[in-house]
Parts: sequence; structure tokens; C-alpha cells
Amino acid sequence: MTTTDATTRFLAALRFDAAGLVPCISQQHDTGEVLMMAWMNADAVAETLATGRVCYWSRSRGALWRKGESSGQVQRLHEMRLDCDGDTLLALVHQHGVACHTGRRSCFYRAPRGESLVELTQPETDPKVLYGA
Amino acid sequence: MTTTDATTRFLAALRFDAAGLVPCISQQHDTGEVLMMAWMNADAVAETLATGRVCYWSRSRGALWRKGESSGQVQRLHEMRLDCDGDTLLALVHQHGVACHTGRRSCFYRAPRGESLVELTQPETDPKVLYGA
Repeated sequence: MTTTDATTRFLAALRFDAAGLVPCISQQHDTGEVLMMAWMNADAVAETLATGRVCYWSRSRGALWRKGESSGQVQRLHEMRLDCDGDTLLALVHQHGVACHTGRRSCFYRAPRGESLVELTQPETDPKVLYGA
Repeated sequence: MTTTDATTRFLAALRFDAAGLVPCISQQHDTGEVLMMAWMNADAVAETLATGRVCYWSRSRGALWRKGESSGQVQRLHEMRLDCDGDTLLALVHQHGVACHTGRRSCFYRAPRGESLVELTQPETDPKVLYGA
């Protein structure tokens, strides 16, 4: 596990936006599937590196968002990567179950096809099971 | 190619931020490598869908950024995807050459290892060749 000194050094390399956040893309480490994009503040980055369990910052709730806390759909960190200008993170993870609140593996399930916006995948899990009826 | 009506419909499904932007992750369509993350405004999305060549919005320059215009490192769009809440795009692309201005294939080349932030890859192309000396 990354130590506190290393975390401090990593945080110093990040360029947070005016709201103190950086976007974090999560990708399934072995298949390469892009699962979701969410935001992290410094505390979320530090907690993710310290625990190995991915923690975001919920902009709507204004609180740390330990992915899977309600749904059980935890993301385990395999590696955190930082981009060239330090303002975006890529978390290589193992996604337990599904990443998307709709019950789909990935949040990126819609695409234009001709005149329509089609759904490329169907839910694998009933959201009612994930979050209660 | 997506028609104008389809583009209008796609744009209507997007939730742009207060600055009129959405983040767009680009991923090499066949290998799954995450290349970069940049921003698009409505014009950039429309141009990308119309031309099949990825166009971002440069926040630093305040102008459309036709990826590869200076460097030749063009991204050809294979498929545009939209996430569940409509505020993030995933562009599956073919990246000609390298995505990163450092000459690396992907911008996500740094990762914490113990106490250090290490570089996982080396430049494939000299940035001087891409952008002039």
C-alpha cells in the first residue's frame, strides 16, 4: 500500500480544479472496459490510495462517496495513473459486479446509430436489488 | 455518418457543465487503451460526429482543437458513447501515432510506486518532431 509520504507526493503532482476536484476515469484492469467517470477531491484520492478501495467525491451529495457503500458494487484499486498535465486520473480497478447505477457493467452504454440513441447493453442486475425497492 | 438530425438529438441528450463543456475520454477502439481526456463543447461534438475526426475544445486557447492539426496525430472516430447521466463522453477512436504531447501513446503514463511517481512508458516520438523545435 502506498505510504502517507507517497500519497502526499502524489497529491502534490495533481492539479485540482477551482472546486478542488479532479476527474477520475475507472477502467477494469484486465479487460480494458471503461466503467465510469467521477470526481475526486484530495481526501478521496488519499483514501483510495490508503485503502485500495476506490472513493470518489459526490458533487450532488457534497460528501465522500465510497463506491459500493450502498450497492455493494465495490471497486478495488489495482493502479492509479496520472496524466501528463496532472489534471485527470485513471484508476485501473477490479469492479465487483456493475459500475453503473442502472445495473449495467459500464455507464457508457448509449451511442448514436443513425437517427437514434441506442442502448448497447442491458442491465445485468436489477437496480432495485442494488439500492432497495 | 451521423446526420444533422441525429446530431441535434445527441446534443439534446448531453448535460453540459456551467462552462458549456463535457469531458470526453478517448480510448483506442481495438486495444482498449485509454489515451487521454479532454473537453468538448456542442460545436466540437457536432463537428466530431459530422467529420469522423475528433475535435475537442481547448480551454487554454478558447478555441476548437482539431486533434492532430499541428502534430498530425489525428484521432478517427469509431463510435461515440454517452454515459448514464449524459455528462461524460467516451470516444472509441483510432489514434494515428501518439495521443500525448510528450510523444507517448497515452497521457496516463505516471503512477505511484512506493515513494516515487514513476513513468510507465517512454516517448515513442520526439515532441520536437510533432510540434517543431
